[in-house]
Amino acid sequence: MTAPHPLSSGTRLGAAAGRIAPLDADAAAAAAAHHDRLTKPRGSLGRLEAAGVQLAAIAGSSPPPLPTPATVAVFAGDHGVVAEGVTPWPSEVTAQMVANRCAGGAAVNVLARQVGAAVVVIDAGVANDIPAEAPSLLRRNIRRGTGNIAVEPAMSRHEAQAAVDLGVDVAERCVAGGARCLLTGDMGIGNTTPSAALVAAFTGRPARQVTGRGTGIDDAMLARKTKVVEQALARVPHEADALDVLAHVGGIEIAALAGFVVGGVAARVPVVIDGVIAAAALVTAEALVPGVGRHCFAGHRSSEPGSSAALAHLGLEPLLDLGLRLGEGTGAVLALPLLQAAAAVLREMATFDAAGVTGKEVAARRQP
Amino acid sequence: MTAPHPLSSGTRLGAAAGRIAPLDADAAAAAAAHHDRLTKPRGSLGRLEAAGVQLAAIAGSSPPPLPTPATVAVFAGDHGVVAEGVTPWPSEVTAQMVANRCAGGAAVNVLARQVGAAVVVIDAGVANDIPAEAPSLLRRNIRRGTGNIAVEPAMSRHEAQAAVDLGVDVAERCVAGGARCLLTGDMGIGNTTPSAALVAAFTGRPARQVTGRGTGIDDAMLARKTKVVEQALARVPHEADALDVLAHVGGIEIAALAGFVVGGVAARVPVVIDGVIAAAALVTAEALVPGVGRHCFAGHRSSEPGSSAALAHLGLEPLLDLGLRLGEGTGAVLALPLLQAAAAVLREMATFDAAGVTGKEVAARRQP
Repeated sequence: MTAPHPLSSGTRLGAAAGRIAPLDADAAAAAAAHHDRLTKPRGSLGRLEAAGVQLAAIAGSSPPPLPTPATVAVFAGDHGVVAEGVTPWPSEVTAQMVANRCAGGAAVNVLARQVGAAVVVIDAGVANDIPAEAPSLLRRNIRRGTGNIAVEPAMSRHEAQAAVDLGVDVAERCVAGGARCLLTGDMGIGNTTPSAALVAAFTGRPARQVTGRGTGIDDAMLARKTKVVEQALARVPHEADALDVLAHVGGIEIAALAGFVVGGVAARVPVVIDGVIAAAALVTAEALVPGVGRHCFAGHRSSEPGSSAALAHLGLEPLLDLGLRLGEGTGAVLALPLLQAAAAVLREMATFDAAGVTGKEVAARRQP
Repeated sequence: MTAPHPLSSGTRLGAAAGRIAPLDADAAAAAAAHHDRLTKPRGSLGRLEAAGVQLAAIAGSSPPPLPTPATVAVFAGDHGVVAEGVTPWPSEVTAQMVANRCAGGAAVNVLARQVGAAVVVIDAGVANDIPAEAPSLLRRNIRRGTGNIAVEPAMSRHEAQAAVDLGVDVAERCVAGGARCLLTGDMGIGNTTPSAALVAAFTGRPARQVTGRGTGIDDAMLARKTKVVEQALARVPHEADALDVLAHVGGIEIAALAGFVVGGVAARVPVVIDGVIAAAALVTAEALVPGVGRHCFAGHRSSEPGSSAALAHLGLEPLLDLGLRLGEGTGAVLALPLLQAAAAVLREMATFDAAGVTGKEVAARRQP
C-alpha cells in the first residue's frame, strides 16, 4: 500500500493547505498607512511596525486582532539516533520532562503563565511511558520513538503523514478552543540531530554548517553528531519528495510541528516558531506547502547554527536574540508580548489629528 | 552663591547615593547555582539567566522578587537648541505629546497597558503650557526649556541640581507607591542633540560618532546637528565637574532622568533604561555616582548611534534590538516582560530533584 500524496485532499495537511489564504496586501498597506498617522515619528517603532503590518496581512484586517489568547503546543517525541551517542541525556528524560510539563514546572510553563498563554503537551512519539496524567496532555502517540537515522529511516512514509496530520489536527483544535495565536513547542532528547539533517536537506547546506552543540556537548560528541547527520543524509534516496525526506531523517514531533504550522496558517492566526526544532519543522512545512513560511513569525534566534540557516532560507528575521537553546517553546513564548504590543499599537494609539499634535510635515513647512 | 556639591548630604542625590548598596555577590551566586538545578540544560536560557542573576544581585535575595508592579516615569522638557534647526518638529509638540500621554493615546501608554505598567508624566522643563490635567501628570517645572547649548549653557548649576533631585524624588515616590521596577521615559523635541553632547562628553567620543538622525532628519540637518554638538562641547569649561557638564550641554528632563536612575538604584529596585536619551542620562548618572550604571538594565539598542556608544561605555548589553527610535520609554516597557520572565524562572521552575528528572551528569556517567 502506498501512502497518499501528502497534499491530496484526503489528508488533513492537504485540506489545510487548500484553505490557506494569501497574505492580504491591502490590509498590510492599510496598517502601514495607519502607522504613519499615529503620534510618533514615521517608522520609529522599527521592527514592531513591521510585525504589526504582518499581523494585518495574516488576519486580512487592519488593525489586526490582538494575538490573544495564545496557546503553545509542545510536541514530544523520541529519537532512535541517541544510540549513536549524540547527546549525554538518555531518552527516558523525554517522558520525564513531559510529566514535568504536565505538573507545570518546566520553563515553558513558567514563561507561559507569565504572559497568560495556555500550554498543551502532545505525546506524538515518546518512547517511554509518561508518568503523568493531566487535562493538558494529549496522548496521540504514533510510534514509540523513531528509528536510528544513521542506519535506518526515522519512520515510514505513512507514519510521517500521520504525524503531520496530527499537527494539523492539534492546530485546528487549539483555534476551535479559542486560541488566536499559536506558538510551537517541542521536547525530545536527541532532536537537534534530525533537525540538523532536515535543515541541511531542505536548505542545501552541508551538515557541518547546521549541526550544533544542542544542550551542550563537547567537541568529540559534536564531531560524531555531524558524522551521523551526514550518514542520515546519504541514506535519503535521490528521488525523495519532501515527505520522504521527513520520513527518512526527521522526527515524529518535528513532523507534527510542520503540520501544526500549516494548520495555524490555514486558520489565519499568527504562528510563532521557537528554536531550531521548530525552524527545521518550518523548512519542512515550506517544502510540503511552498509559501507557508512567509506567514509565520520567528520568535528568536537560537544559538544552534541550524536555526540561523533555516531562518535565512525562509527569509525570517527573529524578534529576539538572547542566546536561548532550551526549546520547549520558550523563545516563542518570550516573543509573544512583542506581537501583542505590535497589534495594540495599531489598535489603540492616537493619531496626530485626534490628539491635536502638530505633525512633522506641518512643522517642516515652517522651517526657514 | 555657589551650588552645593552634587553629592553633598544636603542634596536628594547625595542622600540617595549614600544609600546605594553594592550588588550582592552572594545572592548572584545563589541564583546562578539555582539555575543549574532547574529542569533545563545548563545555561540554555542564555541572557535570561544572566538577567535573573542580576535581579538577585540588585535585590540582595535569591530568588529575586518579581519586578512587578512597574512604573514608567516619562520626564518631559524642551530644548533651546531647536533654534539651530536640528529637528523638523517644533517645541510646541512636547506639550502636545505630554497631553496625548495624559489622555492615554501615546505609544508608551499603549505598551504600558499591554504589560500592566503604570505611567506617570513629569513636566520637568516643558516650554509651553500643557493643555491637559491628569492624576498621572506631575507639574514640577524647573525652567521653561533650556538655553540654546550652541551659544549658552542649557541651565544653571543650581537648576541642574534641582532637576537631578527632582528625579530622585520621583523615583522615591514611585517606590513608596508600590513600584517594584522603574522604567525610564522621556519626551522633549530636540533632546537627541543634548543627549549626543552628554554621551560625547562622558565617553570621550567625537560628536560625529554619537550624533544621529533622531526622529528622522536629512543629511544637511544631521551635519548641522553634529556641528551644534561640537559647538556645545567646546563651550564646556576645562575644569567642569559632571554637574557642570550637565548644566552646560544637558537637558532638564535628562538631568531628572539621571536622578531618577540613582533614586531607583538606591531603593534596590531594577531600573530599566529606554533609548539614547536615557543612555545619556545614565552616563551622566555614572559620572555623578560612579558604579550606578552596573545596577541597571538596558531595555533595547536604539538605532541612535549615541545609544550604542553609551551602552558600550557602561558595559551594558541591551535586551532588545528592534530598531526602535521613539523614546517615551517604549523600549524599556517592551523589555519588561523579559525581566519578569527571568525572575519567574528562578521563582517557579522545578528542579531536577523535585521533578524526578534524570540530570545530565547522571546520564553522562552511563555513557559507554
